[in-house]
Amino acid sequence: MPIRNEVLDQLAARRSVRVFTNEPVAPEERAAILDAAFNAPTAGCQQLYTILDITDPALRAQLADLCDHQPMIAAAPLCLVFLADCRRWPRAYRAAGAAPRDPGPGDLLLAVADACIAAQNAVTAAESLGIGSCYIGDVLENAEAMRAALALPPHVVPAAMLIFGRPTEQQRTREKPRRFAPEAVVCENTYRDRSEAELRADFAARDAGPGYDFDRDLQAFCARKYDSDFSREMSRSAAVYLADFLPGAPAEPAR
Amino acid sequence: MPIRNEVLDQLAARRSVRVFTNEPVAPEERAAILDAAFNAPTAGCQQLYTILDITDPALRAQLADLCDHQPMIAAAPLCLVFLADCRRWPRAYRAAGAAPRDPGPGDLLLAVADACIAAQNAVTAAESLGIGSCYIGDVLENAEAMRAALALPPHVVPAAMLIFGRPTEQQRTREKPRRFAPEAVVCENTYRDRSEAELRADFAARDAGPGYDFDRDLQAFCARKYDSDFSREMSRSAAVYLADFLPGAPAEPAR
Repeated sequence: MPIRNEVLDQLAARRSVRVFTNEPVAPEERAAILDAAFNAPTAGCQQLYTILDITDPALRAQLADLCDHQPMIAAAPLCLVFLADCRRWPRAYRAAGAAPRDPGPGDLLLAVADACIAAQNAVTAAESLGIGSCYIGDVLENAEAMRAALALPPHVVPAAMLIFGRPTEQQRTREKPRRFAPEAVVCENTYRDRSEAELRADFAARDAGPGYDFDRDLQAFCARKYDSDFSREMSRSAAVYLADFLPGAPAEPAR
Repeated sequence: MPIRNEVLDQLAARRSVRVFTNEPVAPEERAAILDAAFNAPTAGCQQLYTILDITDPALRAQLADLCDHQPMIAAAPLCLVFLADCRRWPRAYRAAGAAPRDPGPGDLLLAVADACIAAQNAVTAAESLGIGSCYIGDVLENAEAMRAALALPPHVVPAAMLIFGRPTEQQRTREKPRRFAPEAVVCENTYRDRSEAELRADFAARDAGPGYDFDRDLQAFCARKYDSDFSREMSRSAAVYLADFLPGAPAEPAR
């Protein structure tokens, strides 16, 4: 018998919500969502993130456009951008009279992890209040325009965008997309590639139904997602952010 | 009045546990922890991670050594490594007859986010079962030795390591480290640097107590953490993993 409790049931039932009722997220709900984010585990208790609460309708509309043209971003009652922030602590060190090294790619990956761990606590907190959410991975695209829109200085990188609101009836009752079976994504001790036969079985176990065809369906998904313009743009844009963290990046001014 | 419920209380109370009782994590508890990870939000329902369950004591001892010499990694009842996996889907695409592009840095950041979001659901699930946890950020260090130890192929990168177990009495009663006040880490709409006076106030609000001294304490933290050997190693190592995702990386073989 699988173990069950209220928290586990909620984590299992949670699915992304992309259409919201008009009911706002109340200030005390917003505070509870943010408080859960702050209370997430964080490397060395450093909170290597800054959270932007996007309240300006014009900025929301612009972000909706920059994030692969998704109007739900403008329509959502609450929109938070979790920035990996590799800037606050070096600025504090300098204010204290220290001369810290420049941020490197390890700092970026650690801060992205910190920001996403905090973001997922925000999701779980919202869910407990009946407030749905959806991650917007596209926030990583269009680095130059995003930097201008959000006034991002060097060493501050969008790690996750979340929109929040109460699900419409249709959103509440729709089925949760199926996950892979555990053996498809868990290995004991060391990494092992799934064989081609195992991959076919993994996808069939997840997706099989009327008209299912591994070759055709995966080819279509590859074209629609992985080889899409927005996916290529995401890597181009990520490289722009990354350049700040690689050797040869311009040094930070003293303050 | 802040809103409260069981989930919010649990997220607020959770703190890292680094010393565990001898009680094992039962198989059904492990299954519940993994199930919560699988059920986390994931970009396009792709589950862009592989989870390694490290059961081999010799490998645990090696990882404890590679992760800045932390013996608690060997001693923990359960140890999971969350790998950002940019390999499974391209392999499936190729198995289906497609010819996907090479993975880029956007794929890596998206997969790191996916892996950390799943990891944090594992943390929350464990907490609901009375099982504590601790992230080990050092898993990003020593890329060459880590790749050999975990048999990591190209485009598979450690995003998070988690150790789990029941807290000792000392761990259960110790104080949770204080977070920054909301205004220190949340901005409305656009990013704004905290002024030096604000930074001093932010740290004082978090840390002030007998003997507190912003300049001396931040200088010491900078030397001990940010400018430490392990922190420099983390960026060196991250650059090794990143090289796979940047232009000029060797192309993947067809299968």
